[in-house]
Amino acid sequence: MKNLTKGRVFVKDSLRRLRALQKQLYAYNYALAAIDFDAETVAPPQSAAGRAEACEVLSRAQFDLLVNADTAALLQTAAAEAEDAQQAAEVRELQRQYDEIARIPAAEYAAFTKLVQHSIPVWTQAKRQNDFAAFAPYLEQIVAARRAQAQYFAPGKDPYEVWLDRYERGLTIAQCDAFFDTLRAAIVPLLAAIRDHGAPVRTDFLDQDWPLDAQRELSRRVMALWGLEPEHCLLAESEHPFTTQFWRGDVRLTTHYQPRDVFSNLYSVLHEGGHALYERHIDPAYDYTVLTGGATMGLHESQSRLFENYVGRSRAFMRCLYPILRELFPAQLATVSEEEVWRAVNRAEPGLIRTEADELTYALHIMVRYELEKALLQGTLAVADLPAAWNEKYKQYLGLDVPDDAHGCLQDIHWAMGDLGYFPSYALGSAYAAQAVDDLRRTQDFDAQWAAGDLQPLKDALCARLWRWGNAQEPAWLVQSLCGGAFDPAHYTRYLTEKYTALYQL
Amino acid sequence: MKNLTKGRVFVKDSLRRLRALQKQLYAYNYALAAIDFDAETVAPPQSAAGRAEACEVLSRAQFDLLVNADTAALLQTAAAEAEDAQQAAEVRELQRQYDEIARIPAAEYAAFTKLVQHSIPVWTQAKRQNDFAAFAPYLEQIVAARRAQAQYFAPGKDPYEVWLDRYERGLTIAQCDAFFDTLRAAIVPLLAAIRDHGAPVRTDFLDQDWPLDAQRELSRRVMALWGLEPEHCLLAESEHPFTTQFWRGDVRLTTHYQPRDVFSNLYSVLHEGGHALYERHIDPAYDYTVLTGGATMGLHESQSRLFENYVGRSRAFMRCLYPILRELFPAQLATVSEEEVWRAVNRAEPGLIRTEADELTYALHIMVRYELEKALLQGTLAVADLPAAWNEKYKQYLGLDVPDDAHGCLQDIHWAMGDLGYFPSYALGSAYAAQAVDDLRRTQDFDAQWAAGDLQPLKDALCARLWRWGNAQEPAWLVQSLCGGAFDPAHYTRYLTEKYTALYQL
Repeated sequence: MKNLTKGRVFVKDSLRRLRALQKQLYAYNYALAAIDFDAETVAPPQSAAGRAEACEVLSRAQFDLLVNADTAALLQTAAAEAEDAQQAAEVRELQRQYDEIARIPAAEYAAFTKLVQHSIPVWTQAKRQNDFAAFAPYLEQIVAARRAQAQYFAPGKDPYEVWLDRYERGLTIAQCDAFFDTLRAAIVPLLAAIRDHGAPVRTDFLDQDWPLDAQRELSRRVMALWGLEPEHCLLAESEHPFTTQFWRGDVRLTTHYQPRDVFSNLYSVLHEGGHALYERHIDPAYDYTVLTGGATMGLHESQSRLFENYVGRSRAFMRCLYPILRELFPAQLATVSEEEVWRAVNRAEPGLIRTEADELTYALHIMVRYELEKALLQGTLAVADLPAAWNEKYKQYLGLDVPDDAHGCLQDIHWAMGDLGYFPSYALGSAYAAQAVDDLRRTQDFDAQWAAGDLQPLKDALCARLWRWGNAQEPAWLVQSLCGGAFDPAHYTRYLTEKYTALYQL
Repeated sequence: MKNLTKGRVFVKDSLRRLRALQKQLYAYNYALAAIDFDAETVAPPQSAAGRAEACEVLSRAQFDLLVNADTAALLQTAAAEAEDAQQAAEVRELQRQYDEIARIPAAEYAAFTKLVQHSIPVWTQAKRQNDFAAFAPYLEQIVAARRAQAQYFAPGKDPYEVWLDRYERGLTIAQCDAFFDTLRAAIVPLLAAIRDHGAPVRTDFLDQDWPLDAQRELSRRVMALWGLEPEHCLLAESEHPFTTQFWRGDVRLTTHYQPRDVFSNLYSVLHEGGHALYERHIDPAYDYTVLTGGATMGLHESQSRLFENYVGRSRAFMRCLYPILRELFPAQLATVSEEEVWRAVNRAEPGLIRTEADELTYALHIMVRYELEKALLQGTLAVADLPAAWNEKYKQYLGLDVPDDAHGCLQDIHWAMGDLGYFPSYALGSAYAAQAVDDLRRTQDFDAQWAAGDLQPLKDALCARLWRWGNAQEPAWLVQSLCGGAFDPAHYTRYLTEKYTALYQL
């Protein structure tokens, strides 16, 4: 009895300390998220200097909290004394973060956070002013830092391989190459067929004035359809749409309104809304622990692209969306049918901007970035040569001449944030989503539900398969759970082929 | 030579460590300011729980950074080795903060921060729903915590005396009583004279539709007049207007737009703009040290009320303001003259809301709060009895019946934030400002300058006398520097008497 009691008290103490450490780490994540969100949405343009100083200190403090002998010892004790699956998962995830982060010298870790704080506003300005030269020195430092960090994680290994694995655990360059080859083999002939004998799509109504007040109301309506409650979800505006969670009960989405394009904002909100739904539905038992938050970038993008494309651009959901659009934009859509809107928002058309790309050409945008960020990290492409390399790939894959860097290699925020190795996740996410929807359709009549604006059965299924688990399961387990079996990109290519064959009457 | 070199290196090391500690403290202040600003301006209504958890951890970490044996030893070393006036001031100010904060047990300090994070959204909701009972338990905890904290600072001393001194160093209850007696003796007869034989003021144009877009443009215009650059200053919206600085290069103001009242927002922006000017003009050499930021609440309010009232409500400045108002609100002001606007925004009229009070009745609003917060802290008034006591004082001092708590004791955020003992600073600030303007007018023709919208000479003088110094001088020194001599409330009462005698042709 005495031993048992002692044992239980001891275990409780290690659990208590483990939870306290996680809550501390959470607080720094919260602070850094709040600071980033502010910086991206409202902060005055010349406020970056003091923000960078603060973020350097806070990142360093968070690093020191995690990486120290006490934490190492605590993780060992707690691993041996874990009482339930959740505690075991907390130890596993913390240990993984510890192993990863402990390899980077503390000063370099904090300096990188500071570098990114400086880099983001410079990128914002550079994009606005079409001035790649202003951004280049920051990107050079980011690439150099990421290459150096890769060596800490896996000395001698291909730096891009290291980063792929960090964003999507287990993913290799060989897998990516094969995956993109599969996509290319399906997409290129489809695009050629559409160009050669696709039925024309009406697009004359797209470029007109779409009043911003009505666009904002449209955002509110679709957030309500997704079930994102204003009590817990805020929609703000930023240069580049994104989603961030302060905690499970406070999820922030952003969008970017364009006066002459209603669908850019609409599909940004639907996309970010998918991210937000995932974050909002993680098991509350994981609050303030390392188990909360989406698991990998690919899984996160699978949810955003599922809600943006598989639901949002489906023929069925257009039956629900069209009356809302007609109500909010009666003059703009006076002569435009439901079918015409559906075909227009799905038209496949090579364009310059990834975030506005259709489902078919989207993967080509990702391939360009995949190949270029791989070359940057492998050291075979100099930052100074990036614009020319970018423009060459857009000519090769999309047949387009890039008029300037603002519409070229400056368009995305990812590299300015230090994210090199992230882009393949978008394409992988689309493929996960295709397979998940296929599998769920075997027991659900989604078309009828979506036409009626009823997302609940879909949300319930995704919650059970993926959302609720947060980081409490390994990514491989979650991918299989979401897809309903071993991952197979054929679902994605079949989806694209069937959808575009029908849409263009090929 | 060897000793000198050693000495200099050693001193440099203590300076380096002192600066590093201050930058760490700065980072936590930055994070907490960013989190608070977010909470007051955009955060979703049901997001407080996770914010409170994060703030508790961050406050505790900040506390632990400052209060420990290493810091105590560093302060001693640095005090002995200070090389210049700035370093000596940094040590002095840090030592003062250390002495103050070290008296509160760390857990109580963090718990109070968390309590306030919970209390603010409850107050916001309670005010909206006119539900004092919902807020009362939080106010009870706040009063109890502030009473307990006062005992840590000065055991056995009157808790209100302790808190007065913390907001305005050196201020006593006896001084406050005397100060408010002086004000009462001047204000009460003036108000009676106005009521009995003041020339009527035209007010028919005040309550009409003032379009929000034009109100927002007005805010931008007056911020430009004050010289608050959008590159460094953001104007946001919140329930209760306030100003906060993330750092000197990033100052945030908030306002609250009312569709039927253009002057509420206008004078909020002018008021908060005064706070912001002070923060923006502190010596950049003090960035990331404890010397940056305004010195005391009274000095801060002196600047906000100087720009709101002494400039913003002056007859001279109305010559500059009126054409702007006419341009933005042509229909609303079609039949209203410059003189009529000036008289209307200066009319003395007992009202329920402090932030909308005129200069004459304002001090009466402060007196109510002064007496009630004193009684709360002294334990002679229970929180449950606050609404009745509030309403009784409003009847006695302002002759008004308070219809509900939303327009009564729930109107101000201060107590919900834990600020009890702050209110007298507003009245003191007005008195400092009156004396400063009197003194500066001896060499400056402010009337001509302000009529032309030229604030630069005033700003230069205030910068030299007060702003640039931050916390590098003691408050007593700063008050004397600002006022141009020993503080004398007679300037304030004379200003009120002359202004209202002329305005009402008494």
